[in-house]
Amino acid sequence: MHGLMMEQQLLISGIIDHAAKYHSDGEVISVNTNGGETRTNYAEVRARALRLSSALLKRGMNKSDRIATIAWNNHRHLELYYAIPGAGLVCHTLNPRLFPEQFIYIINHAEDRIIFFDQTFLPLVDALRDKLTCVELFVLMEPHNEELAAAHPWMESYEDFLATGDENASWSADLDEKDASSLCYTSGTTGNPKGALYSHRSTLLHTIMSATPDVMNLSACDSVLPVVPMFHVNAWGIAYSAPLVGAKLVMPGPGLDGKSLVGLLNREKVSFSAGVPTIWSGLLQHLSDTNTKLPHMDRTVIGGSACPPSMIDTFRDDYDVDVIHAWGMTELSPLGSVNNLKYKHLSLSKEEQNALRINQGRPPFGIELGVFDEEANQLPNDGIAQGDLYCRGPWVISEYFSGEGGDPLVDGWFPTGDVAVIDADGNMTIRDRSKDIIKSGGEWISSVELEGLAMAHPNIADAAVIAARHAKWEERPLLIVVPVEGKTVTTEDMQKFYEGKVAKWWIPDAVQITDEIPRNATGKIRKNLLRESFGDVLMK
Amino acid sequence: MHGLMMEQQLLISGIIDHAAKYHSDGEVISVNTNGGETRTNYAEVRARALRLSSALLKRGMNKSDRIATIAWNNHRHLELYYAIPGAGLVCHTLNPRLFPEQFIYIINHAEDRIIFFDQTFLPLVDALRDKLTCVELFVLMEPHNEELAAAHPWMESYEDFLATGDENASWSADLDEKDASSLCYTSGTTGNPKGALYSHRSTLLHTIMSATPDVMNLSACDSVLPVVPMFHVNAWGIAYSAPLVGAKLVMPGPGLDGKSLVGLLNREKVSFSAGVPTIWSGLLQHLSDTNTKLPHMDRTVIGGSACPPSMIDTFRDDYDVDVIHAWGMTELSPLGSVNNLKYKHLSLSKEEQNALRINQGRPPFGIELGVFDEEANQLPNDGIAQGDLYCRGPWVISEYFSGEGGDPLVDGWFPTGDVAVIDADGNMTIRDRSKDIIKSGGEWISSVELEGLAMAHPNIADAAVIAARHAKWEERPLLIVVPVEGKTVTTEDMQKFYEGKVAKWWIPDAVQITDEIPRNATGKIRKNLLRESFGDVLMK
Repeated sequence: MHGLMMEQQLLISGIIDHAAKYHSDGEVISVNTNGGETRTNYAEVRARALRLSSALLKRGMNKSDRIATIAWNNHRHLELYYAIPGAGLVCHTLNPRLFPEQFIYIINHAEDRIIFFDQTFLPLVDALRDKLTCVELFVLMEPHNEELAAAHPWMESYEDFLATGDENASWSADLDEKDASSLCYTSGTTGNPKGALYSHRSTLLHTIMSATPDVMNLSACDSVLPVVPMFHVNAWGIAYSAPLVGAKLVMPGPGLDGKSLVGLLNREKVSFSAGVPTIWSGLLQHLSDTNTKLPHMDRTVIGGSACPPSMIDTFRDDYDVDVIHAWGMTELSPLGSVNNLKYKHLSLSKEEQNALRINQGRPPFGIELGVFDEEANQLPNDGIAQGDLYCRGPWVISEYFSGEGGDPLVDGWFPTGDVAVIDADGNMTIRDRSKDIIKSGGEWISSVELEGLAMAHPNIADAAVIAARHAKWEERPLLIVVPVEGKTVTTEDMQKFYEGKVAKWWIPDAVQITDEIPRNATGKIRKNLLRESFGDVLMK
Repeated sequence: MHGLMMEQQLLISGIIDHAAKYHSDGEVISVNTNGGETRTNYAEVRARALRLSSALLKRGMNKSDRIATIAWNNHRHLELYYAIPGAGLVCHTLNPRLFPEQFIYIINHAEDRIIFFDQTFLPLVDALRDKLTCVELFVLMEPHNEELAAAHPWMESYEDFLATGDENASWSADLDEKDASSLCYTSGTTGNPKGALYSHRSTLLHTIMSATPDVMNLSACDSVLPVVPMFHVNAWGIAYSAPLVGAKLVMPGPGLDGKSLVGLLNREKVSFSAGVPTIWSGLLQHLSDTNTKLPHMDRTVIGGSACPPSMIDTFRDDYDVDVIHAWGMTELSPLGSVNNLKYKHLSLSKEEQNALRINQGRPPFGIELGVFDEEANQLPNDGIAQGDLYCRGPWVISEYFSGEGGDPLVDGWFPTGDVAVIDADGNMTIRDRSKDIIKSGGEWISSVELEGLAMAHPNIADAAVIAARHAKWEERPLLIVVPVEGKTVTTEDMQKFYEGKVAKWWIPDAVQITDEIPRNATGKIRKNLLRESFGDVLMK
């Protein structure tokens, strides 16, 4: 017997409908690509998104066709986030930091029919467009501009395109919550990218859970600035969760340098932000250089890569900003775990509490995490057993777009490719990517933990630890650093620095100086490149 | 094209699975019916609930059979909340304050096959059991007791019953999220009660949304005491939402008097509670009499009936407890709207903010509210248009259990039977039940508003306002009061008291003194009885 409750599909359009109805004047501030800013609100965002959805269908788009975006966090990108799935199509966000060959591969693989792009990426799109066999229409996300239009007759302006839509359009009527809504490709550090195809349902469940207090804690009293780009796993869902609760939304556009961000955070009284550690490094540097504070900011979620403990301390001690350490993946929409205290921890000292907040935290309701041995047997959550991290839940992929790579699941679980430990409270510590962990004489050493410690050294601007080949131990840790300008870092210094902080046999054998730590499009260290360059230095 | 995400049903068992896995030692404190208390945790609650679900199926219960409870908020009731739906059955919570004839009607109408009851209700059950034609088994929610068993051979003990279940049971495997999970009958102020049949899906969506910051704001750092009974619309979802986030859960058992509650709130450092205004009156009286404070309590949700503004002020000013005014109905699971501020209100003075927090607030994502005229045309949300309040969303009923009362919906909306006004921010003010509003010379007067004001008068212990028949104006407001012991209340006093607080023509024509305001099982004023007694006093 079924319950006797109203049957309503969980649809992305429902979010902006709610925001427009109950937070019609909820502010959306958007830094424009060409300077200046646009101030709008949720009622206007919805009205324009609806018209845009109608324009898309008038151009002959069919159910579930992919529409790509290459864009910063701005109001037009936000409109596309609702217009595309609201028309029954799939919003495919592209990371502009990809290499050209990856771009071409992904767009052709997704069979994108239209590309919407910010003017920053006009040269990129122009250079690649001949190779994008499936794309029928290129739309520049700007008002009409005679000069540009004359120079680039192959493209259309966003505002012209939008104007072709019906002013009184409705959302597509026949959508099922299981229908595909958006597509993100993983920017693997090696190999061809693979697509995660989200549904309306998975997006809605992820959005609601991510607003809860132990995740992002979002309310209508927040001013929210997603530093994490809308092309990086849907800005971790913030473009959905902020309207869901009616929070003020501040879109930073292309200005992700420390100075621009600090200006915006303080002017718009931002209470909540989220981003990857590398962005926050630049921001902290600017704050320190200019002796500026963050009087309105309350908290920030840091994820994407492991957050160095020193960064958590600096935010908390110097700026009174609570850092919430989180972990996720494209394949998880991306929310996997978040570090927050429990009731039983409230009686601990601040110091003890801070020590508990360094790991990647526990899964929220909806996500189940487990560590498994090589035969896929589940290991205990005892804080000791280390194994492959598996995951399952309603916002975890079941397979990649168009079946790429075959069935990724093991007994219904998604293997994340990370090695981790989980304690009895469910708190998870990522030890490493499986392929990056260092196997020294049969024992495992976490490169992530060694990197996090190194980042606290005052002379080090950036650091990576790799498994270098070793004659006796098979592999040994090698610390690769970019020193702060004018400073030196030696093997002896660093070995002393690590003493007492990790087991003796974990201490890297040597320090290798370099100019830059190579990173992929989402800021992850490309260790395969470092291994190519430095993997043999301990063999010499 | 569907998204490629894991298909997982939203099931109630998933909540306690999550709590047991990631908050295994999360405390559950339960005041026992016969004195003393039980301290347990989510891992044990799950283990016992699983065994209980197996015991239910071993007794031959079939999918969707109804299992009734007549019980206080305690750990066994919590186990039943998970065991019954986890076995694919329907948990039917009965309000022990019902009249015997309503009891018999509801149990037979629901065709309950088993009744679990607390010892408080043993005399009640014993007196009625001959008339409960469908009930096959009566289970006393206590350990085995020889003496009781000998005196009442028709019943079994809970612990004996539980022990018949499998220790290694699993949840029922074939459940769909749309399957019925629980059943609550509306305790209408007139007529036969009708059942709202919730599903796993509606319950899960309601639970997750109710944990968000602008609703109950529940986290793993909270200590939660539901004063609202588990037989009153599932304790407003708290028996689900507290385990969902891993909060400490404090179950007050039968002790709902001011002294017992204050003791428990302070000893267990309760940060969040929820209940109806009448319970809080008793608590505030005890606090004032004993000069006691509530040092740990942060906030409380008050709903069920309109909360008098004076109660909000007292909690906030004297006890530093934030009152969150909310509105709901059995037919809405019950969450309909919650009063919380928005970002744009943060710059207002405390006084201006408090003034905004008196109404019933705005709907959270998932609920849509509208006011409609008599021809079911939607009126604007302009803060002026007053009309019938309609509602829709995934946790709103589509019809009553077994089709009772026919199709309740109008164009897909559920008419609530309330008269309300909604402003542009979505904030809703309940003016009255449609049948209680006072129509004076063609204009409407809100009895709820007049009652709320009267409750702030120091000489008034309880108050109700009804539409009394009037020769000239058709209806005029009559204020019916229970004075504080030893105090007097006169018509002249009250007319002066209302001056300047409401329009002149709203001021009640007379004051009628009475011993008690009659209330139904959930604390709602039974105005039909008052109208029978006093409806003609202005005609004399």
